[in-house]
Amino acid sequence: MKVREEVYQKLREGVEEFQTVSTKKVENVKPFLQAECYQILLNNQCTIVREKLKKGGKDGSAAIVLPVTKENEVILTIEPRVFTKSTVGIGLPAGYIEQGEDAKAAALRELREEVGYTTNTLIPLASFYQDSGCSSAYNQAFLALDIRKVGEQKLDEGEYIKYLFCHYEEALQLMEEHYMEDANAIITLEKAKKYWKGGSFYGI
Amino acid sequence: MKVREEVYQKLREGVEEFQTVSTKKVENVKPFLQAECYQILLNNQCTIVREKLKKGGKDGSAAIVLPVTKENEVILTIEPRVFTKSTVGIGLPAGYIEQGEDAKAAALRELREEVGYTTNTLIPLASFYQDSGCSSAYNQAFLALDIRKVGEQKLDEGEYIKYLFCHYEEALQLMEEHYMEDANAIITLEKAKKYWKGGSFYGI
Repeated sequence: MKVREEVYQKLREGVEEFQTVSTKKVENVKPFLQAECYQILLNNQCTIVREKLKKGGKDGSAAIVLPVTKENEVILTIEPRVFTKSTVGIGLPAGYIEQGEDAKAAALRELREEVGYTTNTLIPLASFYQDSGCSSAYNQAFLALDIRKVGEQKLDEGEYIKYLFCHYEEALQLMEEHYMEDANAIITLEKAKKYWKGGSFYGI
Repeated sequence: MKVREEVYQKLREGVEEFQTVSTKKVENVKPFLQAECYQILLNNQCTIVREKLKKGGKDGSAAIVLPVTKENEVILTIEPRVFTKSTVGIGLPAGYIEQGEDAKAAALRELREEVGYTTNTLIPLASFYQDSGCSSAYNQAFLALDIRKVGEQKLDEGEYIKYLFCHYEEALQLMEEHYMEDANAIITLEKAKKYWKGGSFYGI
């Protein structure tokens, strides 16, 4: 499916707004990313040393949502991704799972906070280790069907997110065209194909 | 496709050999994982602070390979993944791209080092940011067709990898059954579907 010009236009607007103007290295007064080092004895009697990435003292597991309206439109997010080439990332609502929160609750919370929507139909699409060599982060992706608007965005301080609507097949095309290059978004969009039949998503 | 019992048997053997017996937190004398902190001015005139993960002083970009024999069998790897639930990971040959190396060269090198194979046919499958919020790691996945054995494994010190052969459709099934939960492997296996027609891979 060809992507409509109005969708490209929205993407350009978001990229324009969030792109990096300048970057300055500063002292890390309260590090969010930290590493722990472990010595591990394997069952083959060999000993290895591995470092584990922690994010804010936690594993950094995230929930990702592909939100779909009754009209079968999906929501994509645009936000600063300052360490990527374009400095702006196009992806899906997502965020870290909080202490004591389950992945579904985190997915619903992020859907509410980042785009102001909710749903009664959340279908698990995938679960995966984001960086299995050096992290316990175990991410979970969901398909949110029949989403409905319940309010405005509620973003954290320093969080900037715009969003737009498009057809799922346009989102797949944007992925093919490298507009979306985020691993979480790619896995979620790919795994959702299973539920896409004859131009619409169906639940289970 | 049902996975053959001999494939499950090989997986069990690998998991048995590499599973964690005991773990001890130790001092991190020469940290591989490090974070840098940046203050960034966005085009909307807002200033944000973000941390960037570095691995061994580099971005940590990786190359991933789905190796396929002339008989259309794929190679899966088994290695210690000490921070995952099972402590052992099933995935694909992969590794960090070295300074000045391009992704294709890295893919060929890892294919040679981790399983002792090479190929003349390397097809780009996907490229993606592994953790776009806090890293520049840009991973690239390849399909390696008509691979041929050229020698034994050449593993780094502290690197332990076993490998096994199976049908691509068995690999997909193992992914469905959560034997494979590595983001890199999932993206690679999913993106390879495009080249899988009528029971075999074809080049382009």
